[in-house]
Amino acid sequence: MPARLQNDSDLAAPITCILSDVDGVLTDGRIIYDNSGVETKQFHVRDGLAIKLWMSSGFQFGILTSRQSEVVRFRARELGVQHVGQGFQEKWPATEQMLHEMKCRADQVCYIGDDLPDLPVMRRVALAVAPADAATDVRSAAHWILKSGGGEGAMRELVERLLRAKSRWEEHVPQ
Amino acid sequence: MPARLQNDSDLAAPITCILSDVDGVLTDGRIIYDNSGVETKQFHVRDGLAIKLWMSSGFQFGILTSRQSEVVRFRARELGVQHVGQGFQEKWPATEQMLHEMKCRADQVCYIGDDLPDLPVMRRVALAVAPADAATDVRSAAHWILKSGGGEGAMRELVERLLRAKSRWEEHVPQ
Amino acid sequence: MPARLQNDSDLAAPITCILSDVDGVLTDGRIIYDNSGVETKQFHVRDGLAIKLWMSSGFQFGILTSRQSEVVRFRARELGVQHVGQGFQEKWPATEQMLHEMKCRADQVCYIGDDLPDLPVMRRVALAVAPADAATDVRSAAHWILKSGGGEGAMRELVERLLRAKSRWEEHVPQ
Amino acid sequence: MPARLQNDSDLAAPITCILSDVDGVLTDGRIIYDNSGVETKQFHVRDGLAIKLWMSSGFQFGILTSRQSEVVRFRARELGVQHVGQGFQEKWPATEQMLHEMKCRADQVCYIGDDLPDLPVMRRVALAVAPADAATDVRSAAHWILKSGGGEGAMRELVERLLRAKSRWEEHVPQ
Repeated sequence: MPARLQNDSDLAAPITCILSDVDGVLTDGRIIYDNSGVETKQFHVRDGLAIKLWMSSGFQFGILTSRQSEVVRFRARELGVQHVGQGFQEKWPATEQMLHEMKCRADQVCYIGDDLPDLPVMRRVALAVAPADAATDVRSAAHWILKSGGGEGAMRELVERLLRAKSRWEEHVPQ
Repeated sequence: MPARLQNDSDLAAPITCILSDVDGVLTDGRIIYDNSGVETKQFHVRDGLAIKLWMSSGFQFGILTSRQSEVVRFRARELGVQHVGQGFQEKWPATEQMLHEMKCRADQVCYIGDDLPDLPVMRRVALAVAPADAATDVRSAAHWILKSGGGEGAMRELVERLLRAKSRWEEHVPQ
Repeated sequence: MPARLQNDSDLAAPITCILSDVDGVLTDGRIIYDNSGVETKQFHVRDGLAIKLWMSSGFQFGILTSRQSEVVRFRARELGVQHVGQGFQEKWPATEQMLHEMKCRADQVCYIGDDLPDLPVMRRVALAVAPADAATDVRSAAHWILKSGGGEGAMRELVERLLRAKSRWEEHVPQ
Repeated sequence: MPARLQNDSDLAAPITCILSDVDGVLTDGRIIYDNSGVETKQFHVRDGLAIKLWMSSGFQFGILTSRQSEVVRFRARELGVQHVGQGFQEKWPATEQMLHEMKCRADQVCYIGDDLPDLPVMRRVALAVAPADAATDVRSAAHWILKSGGGEGAMRELVERLLRAKSRWEEHVPQ
C-alpha cells in the first residue's frame, strides 16, 4: 500500500529517528546577512520544545544541512541535539554516515526537507515529510505535507503528529 | 458556570494582574541568533503601549519565561515593568513567588501563554488566555483565544479587551 | 460634508505636507532588540521611493515619533527627509512646532498614525490616515484606512493615492 | 501577438539571461538598519538554489540595483554570481553595460523588477516579470506576474517556470 494512503499510526510506529534539514524547515528559508558578513537565523520556540519532547520520549533527532553556519551549532547546543551534519554536497551519503553513528536504519527514519537536494534522502527513508511551502517536487515526494510552513511550526506539527500517532503525546501535557 | 461561557465583564472584573510568557506571546515565537551568538527578539509597539496603559490604570503586570535573555530585561525596563522572572524550569512555583511579591492572589490573575509549560499556570488562575497561534492543548485550556497571534498584537488585544470590559479603556483615548 | 464621504480629489487638493509616525506606520510595529541593546528597524523600499517622489513633486514630508532611535535618523538621511522630531511625550505640540518650521498650516497637512498618541494630531489636520492594521480607535478617527499595513507599503499606498488624486503621479512613471 | 498572450514555451525559448533587481525581488523589500548603521538583508534559500540551477544549465544571471550594499556582494559571491551592478541612478544604461559584458542582447533577456525605476528596463527586454506584490505600474508592464512575492520565492518561481518551459527542469530533480 502506498505510504501516502497508510494511516498515521502505521506510518509512525516504526519511526525512532527524525532527521531534519535546516533552511526552509527549521527556518522560513530566509538567508539573512548584515553588511559586515554576520549571518542570522530565525528558529521557532515551539519547534524547539517539540524537539526536546521527542528526545525526552527516548527517540533520536539529527540535523543535516548542506550549508554551513555557526548559528546552527548554537541552536543545536541549546536544544541538546548532538547529531549535526553541515556543509556537504550530497545529502544521502551524509545521511548514511549519521544513521551509522546513531545506530539507526533507514526504515526507522522520518526525514523532513523542503527542496531538491533533500529528495535522495526522502526517497530512501520510511517517512518523508514536507513543510507546507516546500518546493513542488518535494511536496510530490512526501508522504506527509504539513499545514505549517518552515520556521512557522512545521517541526512542532510533525513531532506532535508522530507522538500522538504513537500515543506518546499525552504524557507531555501537564494536567 | 464554565469560565468560557461567562461574559467579558464578569471574567474581567476581579482581574488586577496580568502575567505574560515571552516567546510566542510578546514575540511571534522566533528564536533569532546570529553566528556570533547574539540573540535578537521582536516585540510589538502596540503591545508596549497596552502594557503601559494597563499599569497606568493602577493594575499590575509581570513577565515569566523559562528561557533567559538580556533582551527581555531591555524591553521590560523600557516599559517600566518591574516584575520579571526568567530561567526557571517549572512555571507554577515561579508564578507563586511572583504573586507573593506582587501581593496578588491567583483569583485576581490573568495569565497568557502559548505552549505546554504554561498549562500548570493557566489551570490555576482566574483567566487563562492564548494567542491565536498557540499550541492546540493551550487553546483548549484557555478561557479566551485571541484573534491576534503572538508578537502581532496579542497583548494589545488582551489589554484592550480587559479594560473595555472594566469600562476603563475610554479614559485613555484622547478626544 | 464629513471628510470620509468626500472624494479623493477634494481631500487631496489642499494637502502639501505629509507627517508620519514611525513604528507601526513606516515599520510593521516590531520593536527589535538584540541582547547587547542594539535596536533594529525594518522600513520598506517602496515606501522610501514614495517619500522621495512626494518631495520631488514639490511637497513636504516630516517624521514625528515619541520614541527615540538613531535608526530613524539613518533612514531619514538616506531619503533626504530633513524634518524629524523624536522623543517627545505629546504629539500635538511637537506637530505645531514642526509645522511652524515648515511654514505649513494644519489644513494643508495629511497625518498618518497607528495608535492612541496619534489621535490628537489626527483630529486637527485636514486628512487623517491609518494603515490597515492600526488600532481600532485610530481607524475610527481616520478619513482614509489604507489596504496596506504599517511597514508593508502603507506610505507607498498613501503617496500614490494622493499624487494620483492630484494628477501628479503619471509624471513619475517612466515610459 | 502581445507577449502576455504568448505561451510560456515561446516566451522562454530565446531567454538565456536573467537580470534581477534586489530589494523587493530577491528580498521582500524591507530596508533593515540597526542603530549603529549596520544594514541587513533577507534573501531566500530556495531563490539561491534556483539561481545556481539556472547558471548550471548554461545560462547567465546578473544583479542590478540602484542602492549600494555590501550584503549584496556577500550573497552574490555565495551563489557564484559574477555580474553585480550597484549604485547607479538610471537602470537602462547600467543594463546596457552589463549586457555588453555578458555578450548578451536585450531580446535574450528576462528582467524582474518591482518598482518604477525598473520600468525602462522592463520595456526593452524580451520578457518582463513582476513579483506578486510589485507596484501597480510595474505589474501592468509585466508579461508575467508571479504568484510569489519578493523575497518569498519569486526568483525560484521564475527560474522553475523558465526551465520547465525550456524542458530543462527535470534534469535537476534527483530520482
